[in-house]
Amino acid sequence: MTSGFEIYCHSHTNLSDEEIERIVSTAIPGSLQRNESLLQQGQVCRHKTFILKGLLRTYGIAEDGSEYILQFSTDNSWTLDAESYHLQSASQFNITAIERTEVLQWTRADFDRLLTDIPALNIYSLQLITRTTYTGRQRLFTTLSASPEEKYEDFVRTYPDLLARLPLHMIAAYLGISLKTLTRIRHSQLHR
Amino acid sequence: MTSGFEIYCHSHTNLSDEEIERIVSTAIPGSLQRNESLLQQGQVCRHKTFILKGLLRTYGIAEDGSEYILQFSTDNSWTLDAESYHLQSASQFNITAIERTEVLQWTRADFDRLLTDIPALNIYSLQLITRTTYTGRQRLFTTLSASPEEKYEDFVRTYPDLLARLPLHMIAAYLGISLKTLTRIRHSQLHR
Repeated sequence: MTSGFEIYCHSHTNLSDEEIERIVSTAIPGSLQRNESLLQQGQVCRHKTFILKGLLRTYGIAEDGSEYILQFSTDNSWTLDAESYHLQSASQFNITAIERTEVLQWTRADFDRLLTDIPALNIYSLQLITRTTYTGRQRLFTTLSASPEEKYEDFVRTYPDLLARLPLHMIAAYLGISLKTLTRIRHSQLHR
Repeated sequence: MTSGFEIYCHSHTNLSDEEIERIVSTAIPGSLQRNESLLQQGQVCRHKTFILKGLLRTYGIAEDGSEYILQFSTDNSWTLDAESYHLQSASQFNITAIERTEVLQWTRADFDRLLTDIPALNIYSLQLITRTTYTGRQRLFTTLSASPEEKYEDFVRTYPDLLARLPLHMIAAYLGISLKTLTRIRHSQLHR
């Protein structure tokens, strides 16, 4: 089950076989059923999670009870609530499986030790987190500035493979538009 | 002029006096007049910038020509377009002075050398960038989920010292609401 992670490491990092083996040796394999939570609002995020296969969403609940989705996480990507993980504070957000999902997880103590011992992992982590700031900034700009139509078109361009795997109300909750608006946009595109 | 930076380093980092001196020795001091640009869309971001005193905004221009503000940066904070700086690619965003602003700047080559040579600077940089991901996620959630009234109240709570320094149209461009809506909200609060 860990071989997907090893392939990922070979193609995305400069880690040696021995280093990858060391990282894998402290990983805790797990799986989530559909709708099962990896993290719930109020809990402390105690693991860094790599997704071998599946689909998760990170979301928050607004004052009126509506759900807004910050992030979808799929095969060969990482997820966590960074603030809760680093500060060991109660998370403001939830991470829940949309499909059955296979993961590898590391406790913070184990992962911190790996970061100290393996400079190539440290460099890769820094690259990942830096990239997270770019994509976050881009997402913020789109959320602030784009029309609902532009937001949907941007989503289709960015995540073509997710379209068929997500219920419409989750796409709407990611774009910050109503389900009614999203349905109207899709309808008008079909008839264009 | 660099003493403000030294005080900042003493209170925010574990850098030694010698390390701070080394960092200061490669800094390029500069100043920007009101409305002068630190970075323009299409340019490559070639410096990391520390703001000694002043106020800058980072903004993008939407397809319809409107400005949307991603970030205000004031005394004792850092600013750059991380994507453009790291990838040496054309920036999608602009950074411009709202007030006369005094800065220290480092070229990427100089700063990379400092990061390699000074582990405490590396650790601090990683903390800063990690914190950027939290605040970015929080900002995204507010932008997606909050009503215009809640967005304004959140801004007042988070940046009380900026309120009097910013023209209203910039606050509106930061919140992603129209100037008309912002004026209505402020008017109704005054009469509450």
